[in-house]
Amino acid sequence: MRSDIEIARAATLKPIADIAASIGVPEEALQPYGRFIAKIEPDFLREAGADRRDGKLILVTAINPTPAGEGKTTTTVGLGDALNRIGKKAIVCLREPSLGPCFGMKGGAAGGGHAQVVPMDAINLHFTGDFHAITSAHNLLAAMLDNHIYWGNALGIDQRRIAWKRAIDMNDRALREVVVGLGGPSNGFPHEDGFDITVASEVMAAFCLAADIDDLERRLGRMVVAHTYDRKPVTAADLKAEGAMSALLKEAIKPNLVQTLEGTPAFVHGGPFANIAHGCNSVVATRAALKLADYVVTEAGFGADLGAEKFFDIKCRKAGLKPAAAVVVATVRALKMHGGVAKDALGIENLAALKAGLANLARHIANIHKFGVPVVVAVNRFTADTEAELDLVRRAVGERFGLTAVACDHWARGGAGAEPLAHAVAALADAGEGQFQPLYPDELGLWDKTRAIAREIYGADDVVADHAVREKFRALDAAGYGALPVCVAKTQYSFSDDPSRLGAPTGFTVTVKDVRLRAGAGFVVAQMGDIRTMPGLPRRPAAERIRVVDGEIEGLF
Amino acid sequence: MRSDIEIARAATLKPIADIAASIGVPEEALQPYGRFIAKIEPDFLREAGADRRDGKLILVTAINPTPAGEGKTTTTVGLGDALNRIGKKAIVCLREPSLGPCFGMKGGAAGGGHAQVVPMDAINLHFTGDFHAITSAHNLLAAMLDNHIYWGNALGIDQRRIAWKRAIDMNDRALREVVVGLGGPSNGFPHEDGFDITVASEVMAAFCLAADIDDLERRLGRMVVAHTYDRKPVTAADLKAEGAMSALLKEAIKPNLVQTLEGTPAFVHGGPFANIAHGCNSVVATRAALKLADYVVTEAGFGADLGAEKFFDIKCRKAGLKPAAAVVVATVRALKMHGGVAKDALGIENLAALKAGLANLARHIANIHKFGVPVVVAVNRFTADTEAELDLVRRAVGERFGLTAVACDHWARGGAGAEPLAHAVAALADAGEGQFQPLYPDELGLWDKTRAIAREIYGADDVVADHAVREKFRALDAAGYGALPVCVAKTQYSFSDDPSRLGAPTGFTVTVKDVRLRAGAGFVVAQMGDIRTMPGLPRRPAAERIRVVDGEIEGLF
Repeated sequence: MRSDIEIARAATLKPIADIAASIGVPEEALQPYGRFIAKIEPDFLREAGADRRDGKLILVTAINPTPAGEGKTTTTVGLGDALNRIGKKAIVCLREPSLGPCFGMKGGAAGGGHAQVVPMDAINLHFTGDFHAITSAHNLLAAMLDNHIYWGNALGIDQRRIAWKRAIDMNDRALREVVVGLGGPSNGFPHEDGFDITVASEVMAAFCLAADIDDLERRLGRMVVAHTYDRKPVTAADLKAEGAMSALLKEAIKPNLVQTLEGTPAFVHGGPFANIAHGCNSVVATRAALKLADYVVTEAGFGADLGAEKFFDIKCRKAGLKPAAAVVVATVRALKMHGGVAKDALGIENLAALKAGLANLARHIANIHKFGVPVVVAVNRFTADTEAELDLVRRAVGERFGLTAVACDHWARGGAGAEPLAHAVAALADAGEGQFQPLYPDELGLWDKTRAIAREIYGADDVVADHAVREKFRALDAAGYGALPVCVAKTQYSFSDDPSRLGAPTGFTVTVKDVRLRAGAGFVVAQMGDIRTMPGLPRRPAAERIRVVDGEIEGLF
Repeated sequence: MRSDIEIARAATLKPIADIAASIGVPEEALQPYGRFIAKIEPDFLREAGADRRDGKLILVTAINPTPAGEGKTTTTVGLGDALNRIGKKAIVCLREPSLGPCFGMKGGAAGGGHAQVVPMDAINLHFTGDFHAITSAHNLLAAMLDNHIYWGNALGIDQRRIAWKRAIDMNDRALREVVVGLGGPSNGFPHEDGFDITVASEVMAAFCLAADIDDLERRLGRMVVAHTYDRKPVTAADLKAEGAMSALLKEAIKPNLVQTLEGTPAFVHGGPFANIAHGCNSVVATRAALKLADYVVTEAGFGADLGAEKFFDIKCRKAGLKPAAAVVVATVRALKMHGGVAKDALGIENLAALKAGLANLARHIANIHKFGVPVVVAVNRFTADTEAELDLVRRAVGERFGLTAVACDHWARGGAGAEPLAHAVAALADAGEGQFQPLYPDELGLWDKTRAIAREIYGADDVVADHAVREKFRALDAAGYGALPVCVAKTQYSFSDDPSRLGAPTGFTVTVKDVRLRAGAGFVVAQMGDIRTMPGLPRRPAAERIRVVDGEIEGLF
């Protein structure tokens, strides 16, 4: 079996100008990065698509992830390819991969098998430099903050209350907690600090939710980075940092166009964490795609409890997007894990466990219906799946929801393996049954929003928090942030805040340990559990196997 | 008067393919980054120029820098433009700017006035991402080092003897001295650490001296990053990091082609510090330029005591380059400062001070002659310069050395203002009088090499060091590193190690405070004085004035 990079390298790519032309983007509107990657100029996008209706937005989401794997990115790519194969005009929108995981355990994040975006090595490494620009903007603000204190601290910043850490696009546990400013007066004032991986930076979240560079500058200026000795918030604008940060991000915010292995145009742009941020590609890219195609297939991070909820309640709400349909990806293997099967027994047919595990899928379907978005279930096939198992999934979904569950084979066969899914999705989107509405209204208080998500989406009995955290919620409401949506940071493995509770747990409460304002991103983060914002490398990092041989990168997977 | 960015923006740039075509590089050999920047593929460069003699290499260097400014980069650009104007085929080779100074005091580093490389905003900000790639490679190694210790430390690394800091392309004094790995067992072992600015990274130096990506991988593998408990060196190869680092640098090492305001092709590639590293653009770019043009004009950092000496003894020695001529840039203002005039009195004619200050210029000329390289003096004109002053410089240089001193006006007038200089330089280079030889032979011991530089170049009576440092020199010789050249880290403001001793001081010794092996770069650093490897931001950082207005960057200068 060929590895992802072998399959990717064997592909014949079309010049990016040809891909652009296929969606009506002229060569003058392209800013090329090599032959197969280009950014699209905002001047063109501002005018584009004025004479036509926006395309239909299709979200690919999933059941709660398990170590068995679901294949959300591959399904997004495969569905895009399949839509084009059946004569529809589709664009795929994905997040950009982070360098960190690439050198750690996970490897690349550009799809896999015959459902990939290419050139995969470039996309996985520096790509167009967007994440480096975000890292630089983030760290410029940190440097300007410490520099302000060093030169007399006119704003009266309390260095014990600095809320802005530094960022690096690397898995590096040693940087999680550090002390900076050591070494004497010429190096500033010592204080506790830490590095988040770039995808966890608020700059990334703001970048992905901004309408354009001007909106981004305003968002950056609003970010709260510290408090003064008399407890007043200090923003990036107080430090006069937002202009230079925007200058660093001026090129980055232009969406990146690449292609799938089958030549489907793909926007790969932005990539915020799906826990402490909202986990979707940029609004700029999604809007661009909707102007240029009839169907836009995009994904959101983690399972639907986190990914779809945030996609709907944060991204779609704020960007005015109306998704036409959602695809929930499941695998027989993962459903069996949700039904209690251990990882090493997943290859064995087990209808009872599968049936139990279907409760996880069922709750996600019901949840998405609460947003008024119609659903198709995609069963991403693995070789060990039996016909009886696939049939059980089909029947369960059909009987309970009257929905279609379509088996897919895009990993092995490319778009051809997702044609039945494409027919089902297109029919559903074209039927126009979607009546999108967010879960809660803007004017609901922050605590009540959090409770609504916990009850309606997670199935929790209630949400709890200690007195100090409840006070923080009240203070944020009182300070005028009550209209923001809530971004929950929680384990992705369970509906609950306990990663070991698979399936569809009931009879639990979730605990909010902290709540943080992200005024630039435009949400508050309700933290349920301890969320790592800086991963570590494994015992044998993937980096040890990567090298350049005859000018080509080997060992990236 | 228009600012640099206003002049740059008003220019009409040629498509980069046209610039490439003018030096025989076909479009297939280009990897474009937008319309006006491209990398050149190594496959093309490997074959290029086989049917012709290499071009002539011309170094632009200077007297010791003063706050009055000399204009070495503008002279390099202006001379390149002027050579093309007088019918020669010339390419300019420059270092890439660092982001740090751009947001600090200094502003951009792409020339100035009518002698600039463009697009200046892109070159000054992320450009082709080379520095980000170098930063990432540097920090991946740091993460893999800490990760190795975390997972059992099979190599027995003594965390008190970690010699590999982290890197960031930012002026940030708070990161000079830090403690990492705090917060408990899951974050690793706490140890002292610090961040160098990226241009000070050994990865940068190795990158700039490497012949190609394979040579770079070998160099990276040789870098010593720590010592074990039994004092054995640990290299990047021991950590299996050099392959992934090379993968990160695979695109970066391809030279970047841009143009000057007058359309002269310019390679802008690599940018190591001129104190703890050798301060020249990449060997890859210089070699490429020599294959493609008849004259290649390049610069080296700081004054000739540091810049030219390292260019000759490190870069030319190791890359087998034979410079044909050197241009020493001086200004009447700076010479007057070397003659004792205060900065605010530089606008007043002062022939006595100028005469005294010429001693600085004279020593640099004599030094360059020791390398067998013929010299032209370029007097970069300022409006306050009087004819009597310019005449004094011309006569002094003529009488003492029989050399030409040519007044230049490229800042105000572009290449036209440097045509007389171009004629002088071309004549000198074409005469073939250069007999380049390094200052010292490879086989001289490291201490004796350092002494040779101090005596022959700086005019010091001797070089001194305490017992421990002398022992380190001996140990390096004994460990087989004796054949490496010496890279002196010293103040750039004086021939001595005391920045206040301007002119041509005599009767002094220089003190080596420490010596460090840079096995990947391929030199040892003899540290004379305290050299900052992480700058700070000034009270009013340039960043406060930078912003994006109507899609264009304002405030960059």
